Amino acid sequence: MTNSAMKNIAIIGATGGIGQAFVEHYAAGKETRCIYACARSPLKYVDEDSRIISINLDYEQPDSIEAAAEEITARSLDMIIAATGILHAEGDPPLQPEKSLRDINAEQLQRVLAINTIGPALLLRHFLPLLKKDSRALFALLSARVGSISDNRLGGWYSYRASKAALNMLIKTASIETRRTNKQAIIVGLHPGTVDSQLSKPFQARVPENKLFTAAQSAAYMADVLGSVDIEDTGKCFAWDGKEVPA
Amino acid sequence: MTNSAMKNIAIIGATGGIGQAFVEHYAAGKETRCIYACARSPLKYVDEDSRIISINLDYEQPDSIEAAAEEITARSLDMIIAATGILHAEGDPPLQPEKSLRDINAEQLQRVLAINTIGPALLLRHFLPLLKKDSRALFALLSARVGSISDNRLGGWYSYRASKAALNMLIKTASIETRRTNKQAIIVGLHPGTVDSQLSKPFQARVPENKLFTAAQSAAYMADVLGSVDIEDTGKCFAWDGKEVPA
Repeated sequence: MTNSAMKNIAIIGATGGIGQAFVEHYAAGKETRCIYACARSPLKYVDEDSRIISINLDYEQPDSIEAAAEEITARSLDMIIAATGILHAEGDPPLQPEKSLRDINAEQLQRVLAINTIGPALLLRHFLPLLKKDSRALFALLSARVGSISDNRLGGWYSYRASKAALNMLIKTASIETRRTNKQAIIVGLHPGTVDSQLSKPFQARVPENKLFTAAQSAAYMADVLGSVDIEDTGKCFAWDGKEVPA
Repeated sequence: MTNSAMKNIAIIGATGGIGQAFVEHYAAGKETRCIYACARSPLKYVDEDSRIISINLDYEQPDSIEAAAEEITARSLDMIIAATGILHAEGDPPLQPEKSLRDINAEQLQRVLAINTIGPALLLRHFLPLLKKDSRALFALLSARVGSISDNRLGGWYSYRASKAALNMLIKTASIETRRTNKQAIIVGLHPGTVDSQLSKPFQARVPENKLFTAAQSAAYMADVLGSVDIEDTGKCFAWDGKEVPA
């Protein structure tokens, strides 16, 4: 392994279930030089040889996104992964995905769109320029199969579905612009499957046992997908098994 | 024409270019009993026989949406048309569709999503129950071809595109739920073409002359489409010429 083949990676949402699994997955890789682990709270996971650098980034403080990008000293990243998202949250009232039209309210739509759509949009703005331009580079963002309009058969979950459809549009739109400015950059959405995480906890009942992944499994599957996508795939969304998720 | 065939219609955004054209189009129709014209400001257009009722509704005051629904005395509407949307606006700074990633900012995303996504979501919540259930009924919302993820070839216009993709998801999701509760209700998105209106004014340069419609033309074309869609079309988006716009 030559030094130039060593990879610099940024992971946003690095303390979440899937985000932390991505950090651990790539920290175990011999090709990894440095992981910029961006999150609202300091990283619990610390590696022995200090290849992981913890950076503050909070979607609810938009200025922190630009500030985080400026903290990344390696100005040519091989890969950026946004492993963020909100589906439900504790609080008073708690945030729960809408079962029906009657549950729709402005505050929930605003909050879910802020985390799942506006945050990633600002991330694309401030982090895309950090991708290296001289060889294959990747920007992956966690989307979700329920963000597919054409695949929607069950209904419900209005704000989550709308926010991920909007995110898929941002990914497609950013990929079109980026093909003009960085011909080797691949921007994709990822559907992680149903992962045994905080996000899916209340919704696991109907998931077949062999389709409820640990975060580590899901991250490993998605890392495989990221290893195989090429420039023709930019702007699309892929599931953990490598199959394209339609718009 | 029997009395029971006379139609009650609600039009939201009734003072906008296309909204007002819809009001005038249906006010001229002999089948129309009453038009509930909902808008932020009072309607300029007044008909001679008082079939048009002006109702206050402002997306930026979410409570006004529920209040407007309660003001509609005919509790079984034949048709609801949401002719609202924001692409650009005057102000300091003015709101303009993003030409590139560099133009993305949180305030613009919030505002465009509030008008193009959250407002229509609340409209679906509070107005869908007003559709009659005993025969064909329609809920149409202005979307846009640039809200199609798969049709996106040019890039740019991040917040507008994302907000309309999110709206298309809401339309699809609401249509799935509504098929369980109101089997004759058809919910569709509409692409009006490029209309010579305030919204498209700065962006008409590249539109062929015969494809720049007056608001009246576009409303008439879309009214034709609304006359021909059936229950199998619910959840989809159609252009002014009746062709489906893909997700």
